[in-house]
Amino acid sequence: MTASSAHAHDSFVRRHVGTDPDAQRHMLEVLGYESLDAMLTAAVPSTILLDQGAGPRSIESVVPAGITETAALDELRTFADRNTVHRSLIGLGYHGTHTPAVIQRNVLENPAWYTAYTPYQPEISQGRLEALLTFQTMICDLTGMDISNASTLDEATSAAEAMLLARRSVKRNGNVFLVDADTLPATKTVLQGRADGLGIELREVDFAVDGAPEGEYFGALIQYPGASGRVWDPRDVIAEITSTKALAIVSADLLALTMLASPGSLGADVTVGTSQRFGIPLGFGGPHAGFVAVRKGLERQLPGRLVGVSKDVDGHPAYRLSLQTREQHIRREKATSAITTAQVLLAVMAAMYAVYHGPEGLTRIGRTVADRTASLADLLRRSGFELVGESFFDTLEVRTTGQATEICASLRDAGFLVRTVGDDLVHLSLDETITAADLEKIAAAFAPHAPTPGQELAEVGSGGGWDSLVREDPFLQHPVFSSFRSETAMMRYLRRLADRDFALDRGMIPLGSCTMKLNSATEMAGITWAGFNAVHPLAPREDVRGYLEMITQLETWLADLTGYDTVSLQPNAGSQGEFAGLLAIRAYHASRGESGREVCLVPSSAHGTNAASAVIAGLRVVVVASDSRGNIDLDDLKQKIKDHGDELAAIMITYPSTHGVYEEEVRTVCELVHDAGGQVYVDGANLNALLQVARPGEFGGDVSHLNLHKTFCIPHGGGGPGVGPVAAKSHLAPFLPGHPEMQQEEHPVIGQGSRPHGGPPVSQAPYGSASILPITWTYIRLMGPDGLRHATGAAVLAANYMARRLSESFEILYTGDNDLVAHECIVDLRPFTDRTGITVDDVAKRLIDYGFHAPTMSFPVAGTLMVEPTESEDLAEIDRFVDAMLMIAKEAEEVVAGTWPADDNPLVNSPHTAASIATGEWTHPYSREVAVYPGSWTALEDDSVHDSAQMRIQSKYWPPVRRVEQAFGDRNLVPTWPRD
Amino acid sequence: MTASSAHAHDSFVRRHVGTDPDAQRHMLEVLGYESLDAMLTAAVPSTILLDQGAGPRSIESVVPAGITETAALDELRTFADRNTVHRSLIGLGYHGTHTPAVIQRNVLENPAWYTAYTPYQPEISQGRLEALLTFQTMICDLTGMDISNASTLDEATSAAEAMLLARRSVKRNGNVFLVDADTLPATKTVLQGRADGLGIELREVDFAVDGAPEGEYFGALIQYPGASGRVWDPRDVIAEITSTKALAIVSADLLALTMLASPGSLGADVTVGTSQRFGIPLGFGGPHAGFVAVRKGLERQLPGRLVGVSKDVDGHPAYRLSLQTREQHIRREKATSAITTAQVLLAVMAAMYAVYHGPEGLTRIGRTVADRTASLADLLRRSGFELVGESFFDTLEVRTTGQATEICASLRDAGFLVRTVGDDLVHLSLDETITAADLEKIAAAFAPHAPTPGQELAEVGSGGGWDSLVREDPFLQHPVFSSFRSETAMMRYLRRLADRDFALDRGMIPLGSCTMKLNSATEMAGITWAGFNAVHPLAPREDVRGYLEMITQLETWLADLTGYDTVSLQPNAGSQGEFAGLLAIRAYHASRGESGREVCLVPSSAHGTNAASAVIAGLRVVVVASDSRGNIDLDDLKQKIKDHGDELAAIMITYPSTHGVYEEEVRTVCELVHDAGGQVYVDGANLNALLQVARPGEFGGDVSHLNLHKTFCIPHGGGGPGVGPVAAKSHLAPFLPGHPEMQQEEHPVIGQGSRPHGGPPVSQAPYGSASILPITWTYIRLMGPDGLRHATGAAVLAANYMARRLSESFEILYTGDNDLVAHECIVDLRPFTDRTGITVDDVAKRLIDYGFHAPTMSFPVAGTLMVEPTESEDLAEIDRFVDAMLMIAKEAEEVVAGTWPADDNPLVNSPHTAASIATGEWTHPYSREVAVYPGSWTALEDDSVHDSAQMRIQSKYWPPVRRVEQAFGDRNLVPTWPRD
Repeated sequence: MTASSAHAHDSFVRRHVGTDPDAQRHMLEVLGYESLDAMLTAAVPSTILLDQGAGPRSIESVVPAGITETAALDELRTFADRNTVHRSLIGLGYHGTHTPAVIQRNVLENPAWYTAYTPYQPEISQGRLEALLTFQTMICDLTGMDISNASTLDEATSAAEAMLLARRSVKRNGNVFLVDADTLPATKTVLQGRADGLGIELREVDFAVDGAPEGEYFGALIQYPGASGRVWDPRDVIAEITSTKALAIVSADLLALTMLASPGSLGADVTVGTSQRFGIPLGFGGPHAGFVAVRKGLERQLPGRLVGVSKDVDGHPAYRLSLQTREQHIRREKATSAITTAQVLLAVMAAMYAVYHGPEGLTRIGRTVADRTASLADLLRRSGFELVGESFFDTLEVRTTGQATEICASLRDAGFLVRTVGDDLVHLSLDETITAADLEKIAAAFAPHAPTPGQELAEVGSGGGWDSLVREDPFLQHPVFSSFRSETAMMRYLRRLADRDFALDRGMIPLGSCTMKLNSATEMAGITWAGFNAVHPLAPREDVRGYLEMITQLETWLADLTGYDTVSLQPNAGSQGEFAGLLAIRAYHASRGESGREVCLVPSSAHGTNAASAVIAGLRVVVVASDSRGNIDLDDLKQKIKDHGDELAAIMITYPSTHGVYEEEVRTVCELVHDAGGQVYVDGANLNALLQVARPGEFGGDVSHLNLHKTFCIPHGGGGPGVGPVAAKSHLAPFLPGHPEMQQEEHPVIGQGSRPHGGPPVSQAPYGSASILPITWTYIRLMGPDGLRHATGAAVLAANYMARRLSESFEILYTGDNDLVAHECIVDLRPFTDRTGITVDDVAKRLIDYGFHAPTMSFPVAGTLMVEPTESEDLAEIDRFVDAMLMIAKEAEEVVAGTWPADDNPLVNSPHTAASIATGEWTHPYSREVAVYPGSWTALEDDSVHDSAQMRIQSKYWPPVRRVEQAFGDRNLVPTWPRD
Repeated sequence: MTASSAHAHDSFVRRHVGTDPDAQRHMLEVLGYESLDAMLTAAVPSTILLDQGAGPRSIESVVPAGITETAALDELRTFADRNTVHRSLIGLGYHGTHTPAVIQRNVLENPAWYTAYTPYQPEISQGRLEALLTFQTMICDLTGMDISNASTLDEATSAAEAMLLARRSVKRNGNVFLVDADTLPATKTVLQGRADGLGIELREVDFAVDGAPEGEYFGALIQYPGASGRVWDPRDVIAEITSTKALAIVSADLLALTMLASPGSLGADVTVGTSQRFGIPLGFGGPHAGFVAVRKGLERQLPGRLVGVSKDVDGHPAYRLSLQTREQHIRREKATSAITTAQVLLAVMAAMYAVYHGPEGLTRIGRTVADRTASLADLLRRSGFELVGESFFDTLEVRTTGQATEICASLRDAGFLVRTVGDDLVHLSLDETITAADLEKIAAAFAPHAPTPGQELAEVGSGGGWDSLVREDPFLQHPVFSSFRSETAMMRYLRRLADRDFALDRGMIPLGSCTMKLNSATEMAGITWAGFNAVHPLAPREDVRGYLEMITQLETWLADLTGYDTVSLQPNAGSQGEFAGLLAIRAYHASRGESGREVCLVPSSAHGTNAASAVIAGLRVVVVASDSRGNIDLDDLKQKIKDHGDELAAIMITYPSTHGVYEEEVRTVCELVHDAGGQVYVDGANLNALLQVARPGEFGGDVSHLNLHKTFCIPHGGGGPGVGPVAAKSHLAPFLPGHPEMQQEEHPVIGQGSRPHGGPPVSQAPYGSASILPITWTYIRLMGPDGLRHATGAAVLAANYMARRLSESFEILYTGDNDLVAHECIVDLRPFTDRTGITVDDVAKRLIDYGFHAPTMSFPVAGTLMVEPTESEDLAEIDRFVDAMLMIAKEAEEVVAGTWPADDNPLVNSPHTAASIATGEWTHPYSREVAVYPGSWTALEDDSVHDSAQMRIQSKYWPPVRRVEQAFGDRNLVPTWPRD
């Protein structure tokens, strides 16, 4: 890498990396290094640092050199153009839909929404929390449930989560879970993978025909309507299931529920599904927002995030994430659910689709789909075709006599894709995009193949044949679903919500471990192209050649950058990637006759998700201690390896460690585990500190998951989507997640040609959330290997510069041998808190007054803040953040000095709203200025045109609420808008 | 029209129209009408109201019925697909450029920018005013001028404005204006049209060859570099020109100025040009931002808007429009310049392009273009081609021997468009998008046609041959041009600027006459498609078939909707359309031997632009009085007609009148003028009250201009772009503006086939601002005739409902016979001001505290507010506005009652910033709550989840500055950032 290539004026690298050469020189001077390279050489163990030589540690990469934004988009466009966009009637959980343009422009294409972080800081996340409350209300209303989570990854994983929920809730009833024979095939496959991990026996039942079986089972899943399109009344079956104390879970189609009786009204305990057809593009499978909703009493078993209404310290209503103690970042190995990544951006879009259409709009759409389906059924019957089922909502199975393939081809010529089953059956699903004219085209494509031309017409039916199931209870009655029906009103509502939130478009979000870097507009461009987002996940191979080429290229690049041999893009979240990686390890051991290897070592510094994933993958977690410097305690490691002998399955490590340092002995750790027959799982969460500096697969990892939404620029979307590819050495390739419907049958294995991935899928679609892969592809294409290394260096430089400056007032908990951190640093507030009484929470909330999102709080060490500036922040913003932290330290001294009482000072009272300084009496011992303009208000008298203090005042972010009461919200769970 | 068709659930009409049937019922009840139709029948004179019958007043329309958003975009896509996008080397004022993705997404595609209004209310426009100050600084730095306006319509009209500026400034020196023979052809043509209007003699001179001629002239325009590409040193010629006291005007290429000495340094008085190649897509000709910049001393003659720095009442710096008394809305018939519409959105984009690249980035781009051009010149010389000029920046003229056409075809096959001149010359211009690889392709296309293969290589030159002109003075040295170089920093800067402004995405902008209606995301979609925005305006006919089809359709629709026979889309602003319409009238009279008809009657209620346009078109303005009800005084009209006899050229009327009423006697007025041999010009500004209700061409108009950025949904963009088509009866068709380069040679004339438009062009490009026509096309296609009528009805209903409610506390100045207004109403504050001392200004600024943009102030009647809610506002927003007005009236009563002193109350102190309540002592006799949360703060204690007062507090718009001092800014003109 030469500095000049990374900094050429037309280079994207200098747009992505916030610090320019001058700034970097200054920062390096502060740290005492000559160059980025010198600093990296000091920070990264020489045993793993890539170098210019040949051999395994060569910095050479198969990733091509970076190109301009225009050139990259031109290349990406060729992939999109090589996909053929036919209109899909395939259905099976994915349906055509119209994304309202106002929602696409103002949510999906708006950085105020897509660059937001998970709403863990509720005071600065009220906009998306309100949107998620609306999502939960929509789900509860339509499903007839009481509490819905704020989205899960997709329908299939929602079903798997519901199975686990049942497993946790039903204490007896054995180990069998029943699954409807008419369930989506992908759901069955994902359930099977999860069941295998936990030793659950999955048993298939045709409930519609056979009813509920005898015998013990802890839960049962019914698809409603069935995957075949069949609509039947499951209330008796549900009653039988629940009478055994097992949980009755329904996987329901949301649009059908506008017409059909809700699962809740039929007696279900749990409803799962997807909101995809509420305005979310097909996207070759995702991302879309799934959901799990439950009846009252099950809320504490609910997986995923749950938004609830609480109040702030002034008593005003305020939203927050409820019952967070359920989440694995807190429960760690006690957790049995691993969903830190939800699909917030997509859930927001689906909720806004419902807000825009309202109950009568959704009903109209549902009725139109039902009517058109009935009309098509009539047309086909008149042509002499027989339908497999006579009761349907949007899906027909048409029986032909060996002409399924021909009809499929005719329909394709007419522009439509359908699914065939065997030689005879044609399966087709209608959606809101199908017009009356389309019906004629579809029928015409059948007509030449009509079995009995000239024969007397079959009896003409009408309607879907489900009179007993007609929905009667109203839904979406809250005013939020009727107040924003004009585009003007909707645009303003979306702006008002966005304005309450703090996202990357306002300022730094220095979240340790979460890597909130730039999500560039060029990277985001491709996801709204029809060539990528209008493709059904089960489209035939010849329609998705562009996707397959891009995916293959991306798999190769990611494998190379991580030092592995092969990559599966199937997991649609980091948690799923982790789970898949651990399953691969188990399967590998089993394939060698060592299925007794069930112990997974997890260092105490590990990500919370690690332990949870290990449990879900059927492993036993054993914690390995850290030494005083935060590194893995080698002696304890050796002891644990010895203790568990042949039971040792793996170690899960994060590198750089979650303590934010490049541990010197990582190669040793890997060797010790390998020598004992174990596998090494390297959590890829911190890959931002490694790209083109070191490669996990080179220094000892057997498998890693990556977080494309961290290191690789997929935006966080306010809490999803994410993508969590799993990368592995070639011996694990056969066990990585595949998918029975993958259009690409083999995957590149570097140096060894291609090979199938044979593990069970962990997400519903063949390639998970494929439509956002162009973001990562574009990022890598723009940066090239030199640019990626420059970004890594800049990220490490920024973290170290920040650590150095912060150390003026705070202690930095861990550093490496050269007193350097990696890409993040832990600010230890415990001594500060002991001395001043000011807590991590106070500092985090006071940062809001200064215009910042708080760093990661109390992770991985309670009482600390973990700060990661990333490479994208410029020096001005980094200094501004440090200045704020130092000023907060000074404010805390005023408390110590007694200037301000411990219970009434700007820190404990933070954040301050505009309303709090405007209304009522001001009784505090500090001024309003100090409250809301800390650090800049004193400059107010300066009247220079470009006075930055004045600009800062004009640009102030005003939190909409004061500090939110957490406990109150859990004690008084309000998970929806009022439903009367 | 049936209510049901307009309100069908999947209809765009119900998204565009804010009031739903329930709301309309309520509003009609308040007014005492049964239905929209009944109200319209009462409001609109029966003599003009369209009806269901046959004949000229039939409501039947050629506009097809409205369709869904998806279907409309599908149709629009077919037009885009029928354009062939070749890369253009045509040049001639239009160059390829890369729009930075961060600017496209966060400005061009962001309603916070594109739905903003002209910054007449500076307190809520600081963001775009800052961006425009940056634009002015950029222009001044690059051109070496002292003061630049904040954009004009395009380069050619800028040149015409500069000619008029010279005419105004130079008191003697005769009536001749010199124009460089090497000027852009389009500039010459536009200058000729303007010169003809005002009786100026245009004389062409080849300055580079012949120097400045002898004889009298008041100004001269030099193109720099020349249209041929020639770079020559004009300083001696400029010195000769200015020595005669004439003004030396240079039309310069901004990118060339990064390399070449600035016009200012060469002695020019005025520089004009375009900023198109600073990131603005070609767009088949526009919109782009032109500019006029002058040396000190000429600022009061500067056309267009000028942003300057002033201060607010607290002494903080604040931007505003300076020297507004120059503008024609104030000067009326004394004005000699008519530019209310500038190109703010495009100027903002160009300024941000400069901010993102900075001086060294722009220099690099300029140098690369120059170097590549020199390289291409070398390549061509080596192939034996001769260049016409040896000194060039980006443009070459290559001499061939009769092979120009063949080479043009070869280049076309290689993907490039060039211009040929005669059989021998190939003219090509390079730009920042041309890569080294492109050079080889271009040279290769020439190679087979090389005149002397095998001949000895011509001498290899290098560089453009303008050593004496190398630029030495620095530019863009202000920190704004070096602070936002990373995409993250740029994204945040754009957000901070946008957040200071109030646009339609925050709330209603009830500007009478300016019609701030919804600009829907679907309407906006097409403008960023390459099929529309990557097309050069002089691309050959076969490349632009889609554009021509769309344009023809749009011309036909607009003609039909207005009752005219033909439409020219050439004018790129309403003012240009007006000018063109008046020129057509003059030419028509002249064609009949009646060139003595020079008097234009203008009612006292007319738009300010009317008088200005009449003057520029060479007519004499005679004002016709209004009667006490605001209508044209028929007696005075008759007298004026009599007074001027054979001199009567035309009357210009606005309908509904600028007083906001449907005048009963409009047909009579038209007949009186027609009977006297005059033509009737109907200003289309208020067409929002007429569509599918009445047609100007039917009730007596001969010609109208329309404002596509008012009635037809092109967004205001913060003060441009606009489009001002001119529509006329068939007798005026030959005189409507055409363009020598129009790809479409004839225009539809309804009922009479097609016919050429033979008048002079009034804008630079053949179709003006063609790339935004898809917005209007889409709007009409979505609405259909029924939807348009429904929108008209809803607009009139909203205005009348508002007038009725406002009349509780205010007087409505004018109403029609049935006590109804049209689509807007004038709130007469004069009695209110007399009684309370609270002025129009106070009410306007206090509305900001309530979260509203003020209505139109003191137009058309001083001391009044003109309110136009448009059809897009919903009832809640309308009521909220009325409530605010009524509360303001109550606040004024407190002043009358003496509760608050006349000089210290929330009205005269408005608007209140957050800083003003947070800092310093609060010495006012009202509380901070009253200051910043008027009307809603009392509800603060309500803790209901969906408390709208709470929501309003959370969503409050905070103005960044307090009331701006207007006089101070004019006394101390600061039109740029500090330039050291």
